Amino acid sequence: MTRILYTLSGRDHERPFSPHVWKVVMALAHKRLDFVERPTAFTAIPALENGFSKTVPILRDGEVLVADSFEIALYLEQAYPDGPTLFGGEGGKALSRFVERFSQSTIHPAVTAIAISDIHDMLADEDQRYFRRSREALLGRTLEEMRTGREAAIAAFAPKLEPLRQMLRYQPYLGGEAPLFADYILFGALQWMRITAGADVFKPGDAVSDWFERCLDLHQGLGRRVTAA
Amino acid sequence: MTRILYTLSGRDHERPFSPHVWKVVMALAHKRLDFVERPTAFTAIPALENGFSKTVPILRDGEVLVADSFEIALYLEQAYPDGPTLFGGEGGKALSRFVERFSQSTIHPAVTAIAISDIHDMLADEDQRYFRRSREALLGRTLEEMRTGREAAIAAFAPKLEPLRQMLRYQPYLGGEAPLFADYILFGALQWMRITAGADVFKPGDAVSDWFERCLDLHQGLGRRVTAA
Repeated sequence: MTRILYTLSGRDHERPFSPHVWKVVMALAHKRLDFVERPTAFTAIPALENGFSKTVPILRDGEVLVADSFEIALYLEQAYPDGPTLFGGEGGKALSRFVERFSQSTIHPAVTAIAISDIHDMLADEDQRYFRRSREALLGRTLEEMRTGREAAIAAFAPKLEPLRQMLRYQPYLGGEAPLFADYILFGALQWMRITAGADVFKPGDAVSDWFERCLDLHQGLGRRVTAA
Repeated sequence: MTRILYTLSGRDHERPFSPHVWKVVMALAHKRLDFVERPTAFTAIPALENGFSKTVPILRDGEVLVADSFEIALYLEQAYPDGPTLFGGEGGKALSRFVERFSQSTIHPAVTAIAISDIHDMLADEDQRYFRRSREALLGRTLEEMRTGREAAIAAFAPKLEPLRQMLRYQPYLGGEAPLFADYILFGALQWMRITAGADVFKPGDAVSDWFERCLDLHQGLGRRVTAA
């Protein structure tokens, strides 16, 4: 039985950048589960698995199909209870949702403000047209207008991670002494920024930067194998 | 054996407002533990229990003395494992620290910006002098200058809770189907604002407001027994 992970891909299959896919790639490695990656263009996603989901990641695990990074993590925790835990219990599951919504509401817009034109440039031609149209409608600005705000967005980035920075005074990971899925949630957002824009958003010695570097080293340097932009 | 909780008090002992004390009051009720409250003025705290801590809450539980709201919650979880859990496991403990630092770094400054002159006015005379001197040094502005920014601070408040608002699409409490200590962390911050400033910070129908109202009803309406300012 081959486990298949459908992932988002730009022009270069070797530079996967989706934050949601990175969360799941790290979760699968955490559970020590093998899988085959199926890089997919934005515009090809709706046709996957008979239209199962409009977004990736999608995991096919034998007869089981699961979409959405958080749902996939919950599935892995339930289906593979003998592997290292992704949540550390029911409280950890519930509070990981808060971390996810912090990441989505605070960090994702901050990454978008820095990286959106870089993301566009990494896409295949047919995806670029879809991406420009959908993102410009969503943001109410052209990609070129977003580009002019890039330096200000870089300067505004690090302060948004102040809750994580303060937490790191107490423990090396969101999960405590070792990482949990909550770490992969915020890692996914920063890895997305690193691979697409590669902006230097942290001052030297920033505890958040040190935590991110530790995450890049996890699972035999799985995150680091894709170089920064 | 009487369990003693040293709490912060202004002029009126019936209107305790400290966010950190509220976290612990809710945690003790959650664990179904009785206690006697010892309301203490700011300037009297350093003399408590032979100078055990510069801040309240301080819990005396028989021979055990614990200061700091998070440390007290950890102590209660370990000392009273048969009561309802405050963390829901090790993952919940670790991630509650992230919620605490989100509350301290994002919500506490937002409450301070609204309520600081109200807090000052609730204090006993000797505490008012201490409070003005220490807070004006910390914030680099007079209390009167802070007061002029109050309306803007009220308008800016609700958006800062967007991670919680989005999380509430998935579950009724940070703890999931039922509250955990993480709920009491953010409840403490909002209860502090409610009792000191009583500002209408939420639009009708805001999910965060609904969650706060649910928290006020917990433990036989423990939070609601102190009226809003």
